[in-house]
Amino acid sequence: MALEDYFQPFSRRDWERESVDGTVRMAVVGLGGFARNRGLPAIAAGEYCETTTLVSGSPEKAATLAEAFDVQHVVDYEAYKNGAAADAYDAVYVATPNALHGEYVRAAADLGKHVICEKPLETTTELARELVNVCAEAGVMLMTAYRIQLGPTARRTREIVDDGYIGDVVQVYGGFSHPVLEATSPDTWRLDPDLAGGGALVDLGVYPLNTTRFLLKRDPVAVNAWTCSLEPAFAEVDEHVTFTLRFPGQITASCTASFNAHANSHLRLVGTDGMISISGPFGGVVPQRMVVERGEFSVEYTGHPDDEVGEEFDYFGYCVLTGTEPGPSGRDGLEDVRVIDAAYESAETEQWVEL
Amino acid sequence: MALEDYFQPFSRRDWERESVDGTVRMAVVGLGGFARNRGLPAIAAGEYCETTTLVSGSPEKAATLAEAFDVQHVVDYEAYKNGAAADAYDAVYVATPNALHGEYVRAAADLGKHVICEKPLETTTELARELVNVCAEAGVMLMTAYRIQLGPTARRTREIVDDGYIGDVVQVYGGFSHPVLEATSPDTWRLDPDLAGGGALVDLGVYPLNTTRFLLKRDPVAVNAWTCSLEPAFAEVDEHVTFTLRFPGQITASCTASFNAHANSHLRLVGTDGMISISGPFGGVVPQRMVVERGEFSVEYTGHPDDEVGEEFDYFGYCVLTGTEPGPSGRDGLEDVRVIDAAYESAETEQWVEL
Repeated sequence: MALEDYFQPFSRRDWERESVDGTVRMAVVGLGGFARNRGLPAIAAGEYCETTTLVSGSPEKAATLAEAFDVQHVVDYEAYKNGAAADAYDAVYVATPNALHGEYVRAAADLGKHVICEKPLETTTELARELVNVCAEAGVMLMTAYRIQLGPTARRTREIVDDGYIGDVVQVYGGFSHPVLEATSPDTWRLDPDLAGGGALVDLGVYPLNTTRFLLKRDPVAVNAWTCSLEPAFAEVDEHVTFTLRFPGQITASCTASFNAHANSHLRLVGTDGMISISGPFGGVVPQRMVVERGEFSVEYTGHPDDEVGEEFDYFGYCVLTGTEPGPSGRDGLEDVRVIDAAYESAETEQWVEL
Repeated sequence: MALEDYFQPFSRRDWERESVDGTVRMAVVGLGGFARNRGLPAIAAGEYCETTTLVSGSPEKAATLAEAFDVQHVVDYEAYKNGAAADAYDAVYVATPNALHGEYVRAAADLGKHVICEKPLETTTELARELVNVCAEAGVMLMTAYRIQLGPTARRTREIVDDGYIGDVVQVYGGFSHPVLEATSPDTWRLDPDLAGGGALVDLGVYPLNTTRFLLKRDPVAVNAWTCSLEPAFAEVDEHVTFTLRFPGQITASCTASFNAHANSHLRLVGTDGMISISGPFGGVVPQRMVVERGEFSVEYTGHPDDEVGEEFDYFGYCVLTGTEPGPSGRDGLEDVRVIDAAYESAETEQWVEL
């Protein structure tokens, strides 16, 4: 297949295999910045989901958003757990702080509602595994909200890699830095280890981790990590993290993440026959820019990528409506938490940790 | 200082502080591909050196090159060691396989000749230290041939970093891959551990290692490395290497090198306030391209960089003529060999090795 063919069209929905009627009615649980600014607009603009219910501890914020997005029902967390307005929605988007995912996913499973849950799934491997089991036992779908996996850049990259266009992948580099204190106040739950489960690794490092797993279609066999915190605001969590993953086939991924550095993200896969480099793959300030090299050619995709959050919710809706097991499943989210736990163990022991 | 000022002009010689008369007459010891294709032309085109003597085990190759570059003297290795044509040159460029550096540097020191020696200085820390001592005792200059350090891209980057333009550096990524078998036959000395001292780490990984040390003006305090070889041609040396360096100030550098991957090199420094990204810094197929980001600006240098090998020899000549201690000294080369030895120990023991 010629390289151009992968890009024609760039944003094709390879997952959309049948035509679908109807929409999935969503309850959005937790109305933080991402849910407000990216989630609700993406659901409203998309094809297969609609928001019918908002769950929030802040009635005022919820009322304003309900008006803005034409949402009929607003309930608080306790009412949600008790099944209030449950007839009004078919599925739940859990976008609360990480440590609270468990109780709201469990409530959804008890009510027989399908779930799309923000990453990371939970704060420990054990808790993440419980969520996967709870949803399986209740017979509801559990998708981990890895928006990158539904973005056309990652999907086209995966196809190119899978077809061997760049030969065998040898080395991967993935980095994501975001100055968290420029966007949020120091009392953000992201800097509270009990609520977040960790720092830069959990919040940002999970992107190169999950995306590399997605692109290679492999899970790491060992991890070596190093973390540090210099500023007082990051006393309780890792401010910076540098970790190396080893994958089957002797592939390594050198990854970094930082809560206190210039906003930047990058992903690069070097193979025996070529290379793929993506600027801004994880949501940094730089727009996504994708370059593929092989032999003596270098091709840059210059089109405008779609909103990956929109793709993510349409994909979730499609999976619910067609009964398709979602690509970024609960197990996928569980695997990342397992690697993150091992990485923290490695940082503590200064040893490689086998997975 | 405004960012543009660093680039005006990009290729200014910050090291050239006085006007100099004369040239340094050079003996070029070893006429492999790099000496033939880059070294001799650069010396011929430069200001402060001229080649008067060629030292080679191949009389025919030497005669052809002597004619092409108008060189008066051709001697073989034994004759060189016995001082043949020693009156015809003031300094020696040692470009033989790594394990042979020692005897030719030692011969130069005995003859009272200054030395520029290819990297890595030697195959073990002990041998490299001996070379540094031998030259110091003989009162001759020893420069390690780190061409990158004399290239304007690295020099401007170092100034920008040193002035704090991107804040405190947090994380560095440096990678260099080169498909060695596409350029040379499998019996190249680069794949013989006795002659090379190692594989991809020694030959290619030394570039991100040395360049990061140069840019940060710091030496690493610990290294963690992982190596592997998959193809039979690389049975004796590391085909691929992935290593992490920790520097004072909690800076990490994630580095990779490969003898068997698509030709590619990249260097990226992420700081608290900005970022510098360089494509092709180490001599890959991509031309050097330098982007500096800070705040909401991204500036790309689009001028044509000078030949760093030419800069390197002019710098060496200038140092000899003015009695200046060269920037990439013998000690600089020794430090890299020390880190490389520690990296191989780390790959063997699967532990961090403190330096």
